[in-house]
Amino acid sequence: MTTELGVGERLRAELIAAGLDGFIHFQTGRAHENVTLRYLSGVGGLEDSGLVFPVGSEPVLIVKDFEEVRAKRQSWIRDVRGVTTIPLSLAAQRISEVVREKGLVGKRLGVDESELTLEVYMALSKLGVELVPFGSNIMRMRMRKTRGEVERIRRAVKIAEEAINRVGSLLGDGLTEAELAAEATLAMEKAGGSKSFVLVQFAENAAMAHVQPADKHVRGDGLLVVDLGANYEGYNSDITRTFIVGRPPTAQLEYVNAVWESMNKAVAAAAPGVGVAEVAGAARRVLRGRGLPQPKHRIGHGLGLSVHEKPIVEEGFEDLLEEGNIITVEPGVYFEGACGVRFEVDLHITGGGCEVLDSATLVKP
Amino acid sequence: MTTELGVGERLRAELIAAGLDGFIHFQTGRAHENVTLRYLSGVGGLEDSGLVFPVGSEPVLIVKDFEEVRAKRQSWIRDVRGVTTIPLSLAAQRISEVVREKGLVGKRLGVDESELTLEVYMALSKLGVELVPFGSNIMRMRMRKTRGEVERIRRAVKIAEEAINRVGSLLGDGLTEAELAAEATLAMEKAGGSKSFVLVQFAENAAMAHVQPADKHVRGDGLLVVDLGANYEGYNSDITRTFIVGRPPTAQLEYVNAVWESMNKAVAAAAPGVGVAEVAGAARRVLRGRGLPQPKHRIGHGLGLSVHEKPIVEEGFEDLLEEGNIITVEPGVYFEGACGVRFEVDLHITGGGCEVLDSATLVKP
Repeated sequence: MTTELGVGERLRAELIAAGLDGFIHFQTGRAHENVTLRYLSGVGGLEDSGLVFPVGSEPVLIVKDFEEVRAKRQSWIRDVRGVTTIPLSLAAQRISEVVREKGLVGKRLGVDESELTLEVYMALSKLGVELVPFGSNIMRMRMRKTRGEVERIRRAVKIAEEAINRVGSLLGDGLTEAELAAEATLAMEKAGGSKSFVLVQFAENAAMAHVQPADKHVRGDGLLVVDLGANYEGYNSDITRTFIVGRPPTAQLEYVNAVWESMNKAVAAAAPGVGVAEVAGAARRVLRGRGLPQPKHRIGHGLGLSVHEKPIVEEGFEDLLEEGNIITVEPGVYFEGACGVRFEVDLHITGGGCEVLDSATLVKP
Repeated sequence: MTTELGVGERLRAELIAAGLDGFIHFQTGRAHENVTLRYLSGVGGLEDSGLVFPVGSEPVLIVKDFEEVRAKRQSWIRDVRGVTTIPLSLAAQRISEVVREKGLVGKRLGVDESELTLEVYMALSKLGVELVPFGSNIMRMRMRKTRGEVERIRRAVKIAEEAINRVGSLLGDGLTEAELAAEATLAMEKAGGSKSFVLVQFAENAAMAHVQPADKHVRGDGLLVVDLGANYEGYNSDITRTFIVGRPPTAQLEYVNAVWESMNKAVAAAAPGVGVAEVAGAARRVLRGRGLPQPKHRIGHGLGLSVHEKPIVEEGFEDLLEEGNIITVEPGVYFEGACGVRFEVDLHITGGGCEVLDSATLVKP
């Protein structure tokens, strides 16, 4: 059994390969989808905190003073310093001290331009270091999940499936979308995770993406789309099921068949070395072949610390899938004023192809 | 009855006062606590979306194509364009077209440096415009809540109080922290809001801030700290109560009295024209007078679209409270390995002083 490299060792190797002397980051306020600091430190929920990572010596994690005990307990980084980090001018002083202490003045330090704000960039620019965009390297690291990351996402998927099962078990009760969403949320909490998001959309409400659950009762005849994600130790799942409620028109049942097949073709295509465009194309071809409208949204996306991350699974993109990627595929068909259908599964790209992480609830409706 | 200015009119006035020709923003990925686009457009949950706001003509909201219908329904901005905004290079093309169409090439445009990422800043820098930091102006706008904003926060407080009441009603049942947290979450969903965060910390677990609820049973003798916030239409509440469970040691009951008095002194001090340092000092003086340790965290903070926003309520800060501000005060006392106590209320600064938004559950334990 091989031992995987820790994130610190991987970052150090990436920095050296890029000819950089270190990495520096700071985030103001609370981070949610901004996850660079969480990824690199192993500590979630930090606010007004940062990292100085020299390639040649120990990294320093700079946190608010009342977070020092927790950060020391949770991080692999041994040098955690709890200091006053509000406002940013005070944080910059402490960062400056660490930069000097580590001999980084005049050196080239990578930054994650996809998360670093202009305000922090301006503050770090005054430290006498050269800041070099390094965000695509960080994202490439994040795309290759470690076994520990895969296990956390697997758990997040299981927790999301608990919520799907709970909604399925309540469909005869005529609850509203909002009530079903609340039950889904509770199911995730009870299963040891927390809600990342929950969409419950019935009949014509399912024709528009990203609409919040409403007072609409789920009863009568129609299709119910439930798209939800759980968070477990910072890592997300994102799955969608379409339920058949009552006896919808035959045409709608045909859409369900088409989207089900579309999803399965995408799953069958996903394997290491295959392009994301090919996976998306496999899904879109099924819909095209049946004369159905194409979804305006992406066919899929990477999944991890963020609900939506790289790689984007869509035509026109050039990424090739790699072992260790975790992606979703989520084809859909929408008719304004009438209905929507979507299925979404989470795939772990393995040496031999791909593993569908959600299996318990993955039955054709 | 006066008519309040809309956010667009306020932004236009601020830009003109600052000698700018417009404002420009774009956010990649999903925004949570990054709320500039939500604040200015009125639409929550946008991803990979942006705004071009010329002072002399109609603003343009640029969203992902499948969000166009929803954004048109929810925004006060009439010119909503659904386009392909992923990857950023495609979004930059569309932004560039709008910048040219609006005659903004060569002009000075404000940006919110507290949220704009370096990556987007680099992309916007190529548009032939001058980008000027304008974030403190946006934050100043956000600090002066409109009546509509106050009403949404008032509702978010009521929803949080439902959750506090629910936890209080279950204290005899010996549930775990995590189970109580799940019940609090469900109560918020049932009351029409959603969980922003929930902390349930019993006995020695309450001595460390920001620890997630655990399997610890809440029974026997001790103090229970419940710190939670609800989100209602994008706006947050943030309240904390300390419950007495069983018969804790007398010393712990004295900490409860001290923190209760500390909170009330801060409330009594809060009024327009009073410095945030004075409010924080009023709270800290009570603790000091009783020989108790000072909390390492801030005494309070602004509250709105973000759970933590300006003004910071602490000694050493110079802001004066203004009518329309909404702040929290949350003094606490912590003894590692033993217990924690914290009370937190949400205050609306009015013409005459301040209104405590949470009243239903604000009873001394």
